[in-house]
Order: sequence, then C-alpha cells, then structure tokens
Amino acid sequence: MKLASLKQGRDGRLIVVSRDLKSAVEVPHIAGTLQQALDLWAETEPKLQDVYQQLNQQSSDLAGVFEFRPQDCASPLPRAYQWADGSAYVNHVELVRKARNSEVPDSFWTDPLMYQGGSDSFIGPCDDIALGSEEWGIDFEAEIAVVTDDVPMGVPEDQAAKHIQLLMLVNDVSLRGLIPAELAKGFGFFQSKPSSSFSPVAVTPDELGPAWENSKVHLPLNVDYNRQPFGRANAGQDMTFNFARLVSHAAHTRPLSAGTIIGSGTVSNKQNTEHGSAISDGGVGYSCIAEVRMIETINTGAAKTSFMHFGDQVHIEMLDSDGQSIFGAIDQTVVEYKGHQS
Amino acid sequence: MKLASLKQGRDGRLIVVSRDLKSAVEVPHIAGTLQQALDLWAETEPKLQDVYQQLNQQSSDLAGVFEFRPQDCASPLPRAYQWADGSAYVNHVELVRKARNSEVPDSFWTDPLMYQGGSDSFIGPCDDIALGSEEWGIDFEAEIAVVTDDVPMGVPEDQAAKHIQLLMLVNDVSLRGLIPAELAKGFGFFQSKPSSSFSPVAVTPDELGPAWENSKVHLPLNVDYNRQPFGRANAGQDMTFNFARLVSHAAHTRPLSAGTIIGSGTVSNKQNTEHGSAISDGGVGYSCIAEVRMIETINTGAAKTSFMHFGDQVHIEMLDSDGQSIFGAIDQTVVEYKGHQS
Repeated sequence: MKLASLKQGRDGRLIVVSRDLKSAVEVPHIAGTLQQALDLWAETEPKLQDVYQQLNQQSSDLAGVFEFRPQDCASPLPRAYQWADGSAYVNHVELVRKARNSEVPDSFWTDPLMYQGGSDSFIGPCDDIALGSEEWGIDFEAEIAVVTDDVPMGVPEDQAAKHIQLLMLVNDVSLRGLIPAELAKGFGFFQSKPSSSFSPVAVTPDELGPAWENSKVHLPLNVDYNRQPFGRANAGQDMTFNFARLVSHAAHTRPLSAGTIIGSGTVSNKQNTEHGSAISDGGVGYSCIAEVRMIETINTGAAKTSFMHFGDQVHIEMLDSDGQSIFGAIDQTVVEYKGHQS
Repeated sequence: MKLASLKQGRDGRLIVVSRDLKSAVEVPHIAGTLQQALDLWAETEPKLQDVYQQLNQQSSDLAGVFEFRPQDCASPLPRAYQWADGSAYVNHVELVRKARNSEVPDSFWTDPLMYQGGSDSFIGPCDDIALGSEEWGIDFEAEIAVVTDDVPMGVPEDQAAKHIQLLMLVNDVSLRGLIPAELAKGFGFFQSKPSSSFSPVAVTPDELGPAWENSKVHLPLNVDYNRQPFGRANAGQDMTFNFARLVSHAAHTRPLSAGTIIGSGTVSNKQNTEHGSAISDGGVGYSCIAEVRMIETINTGAAKTSFMHFGDQVHIEMLDSDGQSIFGAIDQTVVEYKGHQS
C-alpha cells in the first residue's frame, strides 16, 4: 500500500496512491490525515488496503480518483511527534569522523548512534530548502526511514520488526559548518540539523517484496546532484544495525508513539575498498557531499567538491527491479531564506 | 489564563481552569485539545480568555463547571511536535560537568546549550514514572518551560518574546547512569532522557504578574523529595539566557511550529557561594539530585545521596507571592517498569 499527504493545513490530507504512482484518491471516511490513520492503525490499515486494491484494479466502484502529482504533496507526515535518526551505516560514520580527525570507537559497531531530530516542520518532497547562509555548509543526506505504530518501552529486537508499518526516503538536511561547534557542546546536533524532508509516498513493507528482508531495504538508493548521478549505494549493504534493532534501541527507556519516524542514517557502501569510491571513479558513489569531500581529501589531500550553494538541486529516489519508482522522488533546490536576521 | 488537558485519548481534552485551581470547564466549542487551540491561537485565545473570566467570576452563564483535580490531568500537551530543552542555568552545567571532571568552556556563557528531547509520550503530572532499572541512575530535573505559537526561522531575540504564549513546570527525568556513554557518542542524550512530565496547568505569562519580567520567572521553584524540602531555587536568578534568547536560539536554522515547548534546563542558584548549598545547610537547595551529589563530593569527598529508588517521590510546584499554587503540582513516584526486556 502507498500513502501520501496532499498539502492542506498543518497535517495535510491523506490520500491512497496507486502502485504505479499515477493515480490517487482521498479517504476522508477512513482518516483525514496520515497521523489519524496511524493513531488507529489496526482499524484503518485494512480499510486503506481495500481502497488501494480497488485503485490498482481501476475499479469503477471507486469515485474521486485523480492524477497523482508529487509536487502537490507535503511530506507524508508534515509534522510528527518523533523523528529519531540512527547512523546505521558505520562506513558513513568512519568517513565523517575521519574528516574531523576523530576515530570510530569499537562500540560504534555494537551500539547504534541515534539522535533526536526536530519533527515539527518537515519540508515537502518537492519544496525548496530555504536556509539563511551558504556559510553553514549545506549538505543533503539520503536515507531510509520507517514509521512505527505504538511501540512498548523495552521492546526487544526480535519483537520490534512487527511495529514497522511504513517506509519512506529521507533528505536529512545537514549544516556541516555548524556541526563541529554543536557537537563540541555535547548536547547533539540541534542547530546543525534543520528541517528534513521525506519522499512523497510512504509504503507498507510488503510493497518492497523480497527487497525487504531482515528489516533492511536491499535496493540502491539513487541520488542525483544537479542532475548528475552522485550515489547508487545499496541500502541493504553495510547496514550494521537493521531497522528492528534501531526501533528497539529507540524504545530502550521509553515507549514510542504511533507515527514515530526512525531513520537509517546516510546510506553508505564500502564497495570492497577502504571507504568506497565515487561514481566517476567507477563506484556506487555517496549519499551526501561530506563523504565525497573526505574521499577527495584521502585521495588528493584536499576536498574539491563544495557544499551546496543556493540554486543547487538534489534528487533522491529508489527504483524497484522493474525500474519503477517506489516512493516517488525527493527533488529539492536550496534557496536563500530572506527572513534570517544574523 | 490557565489551561489543562483531562486524560482522554492521545491528546487529552482541553479545559479552562480557574485562577485558584478549584474549578474547570470544557470548551469543545472553542477547541477540543490544547494543540488545536495553539494551531489557531490568534482565534482561540480571546475566546478562551472570555471563558476564563467567566469561570473566575463564577458566572451563572457558564454551564458545566466541575471541580478541578490535577490527578485527572495529562500533561497540558500529552504529546507535542517539539520539546527542546535548554540549559540556561550555567551553575547547573558547571556542577554536573565537575562531577564528570570536565570544564565549562567560556562559550557556554554566551551560546546556549540546547538538546532536542522526545515529545511523543509525555507522562501525566501525577502519574508514576515507570523505568526499567534503578541502575540507570534515575534523577528528576525541575525546570520551567514555555510554549510558543508559530515562530519564524531566524527570529531575533528582541522579537522572540511575543511568541511565548504559555508557561509550565517540567520534570525532565534524567538517567545519570546512561548519560556519560550517550554523550560520549556525540549524538546527544537520546536513551538517557526518557519521557518528561509537565505541570497539570499551563498559564499565560500575564498570570505571573510582575514575576514575569525580561522573559524570566522571578519566583522560587519548590522541589520536595520524599516529602522533604529539597529545592527552593529562584528561577529568575542565575538564568544566563532568558526564554526569548532560548526561543531565538531554537529557531536559528528552522521555524518552530505552534505548540513547540522550550525548556529552561534545571533551575540552579549560586547563592553567593561557589555553587550554592543544600536547604539543610541553610541554602536554597537544588532542583536535581546530581547537583546535591556534586556538592557532597566537593564538601566531603564523596556523594552520599543516592539517585532515585523505586518508590521515591518528587513534588515540583511554584507558589505566587500569596502562597497560591500557580501551575498545580507535579507529584510523581518512580516505579519499576515490568515490561522491560534487558
């Protein structure tokens, strides 16, 4: 099943989207918003599935079907009660820490990294990313995320997978220039992680077929930067902690409420090399600029790719084995925010 | 104006509470939940104020008035889209860092500390705090928090105060035993900050009269631990960053959505000494156990007060100059969570 939220008010208007992303239909008789659907998921999910089947079969019983347009969408949850982002691809962690000349402790391979993100103001999948200054070191991070139903505190890993109800793609916008000072304060990323954006469509795990295995998505994550291929890393490879583990980690000391979003962290492959290689070097590339800069530094002594300038564009999408887009595309341009004061 | 949320469903049922906290009335014709009221604050606030005036005047025009009972309340926002907690009392920061043998950088006096907290599962003000293990080093932290309306990204400090719509008290439950390992990972407190709780009642700033000045609350915060006075620190003293500054800090790289909660951090006074002193030593005491343990360590070489055991109880309240409770009391007991797996 595929779900999205048309832009409307603070929480959007829930729609069911056809498997081929061509058509959609509103479902106000089931739930007005995706959060409302998740709040009563056991009750709403089978009803939404029925609509989804009818939509895919182009049933004449289904009234009000319209053309699906990703640019009319907010993020599936335009605001959420929780966004907690892991960093499950330790290759990414190794690279960004190398850039700061810090080592990866052994514990990072056994104890997940996770930060609490801001969840009150997500950006739409095709909306501009407005930020106050290029000096902040604007970067994208292409990731996968899951949405859970209610998860009890202390859920063990082997019972966590069943709480994963939806999957999405993420652009976890990062401000590399602000990260070192924020992390030095010891309280996490706060100002260095502005509003994130998610794919137009959230899908139930069964939509991935055999590509959803062991709570990982075994497909390449396509990242294009200014319309050039930039990353094709396989999200199923080098994922040290799967989503069941990340959900269990998040719920260690508290319950998670329905609609909690848990992210994978930047997808990153080692590609049988020390840290992978760029597409231009024959590799699968990267899912953020910071990694490319580090590879450039390792290979040539200096980074040559700059962080994003106003006008730069990032496109994040995942295709199934038939080349069909699963989630629709995150397609965003960074622009200057004019209201900023300092 | 004073507002609260009766326990009902995920978001509670909004009620207006009389100034003396004795009576209350539902307002479904204005807003069903506090979040709904905040989403349309410019429209709902004057209507809620009208009800509040009638309630205080015991107007016979007002139907459905009932006795207010804090134990029937959830936190004013039972779940929220954002909970960001500052650490504006740098004396607290100095003390807890001394306990870890780390210095306070000069920048901590000019650049606020702030972490993103989990906001999806707040605990009711009179509800038990259920946690998996005493080994986690369970502590309370008594704080003040503000609730904002929509705040634009980049709002300067001098325009931030007007976005503060409500005030509450907070018990920012902290797991001292988990904090060092979490902070060492560099991603913030995550597992070491379980669900927080807030006072039964949220109040508009005008309720504080002259005690609300320069975006600070100039009143003692009363903390009793196992029914003994533990802290009477004045929230208006030694607050290095006022709430306007904290809101501006939170909004530096992103907008804040209506219903955002911004915390002060643990209220802590220096009391013309190096770091203050306990009530039993004639001082105003502390707002968390960690500070007392540090003072004990400084004074005697070892901490003697242990962190909370199952059955221990904390009471947090603020009285106005007439001795009347402003927010009602947070009154909670720590109990063992039986569902925890590890």
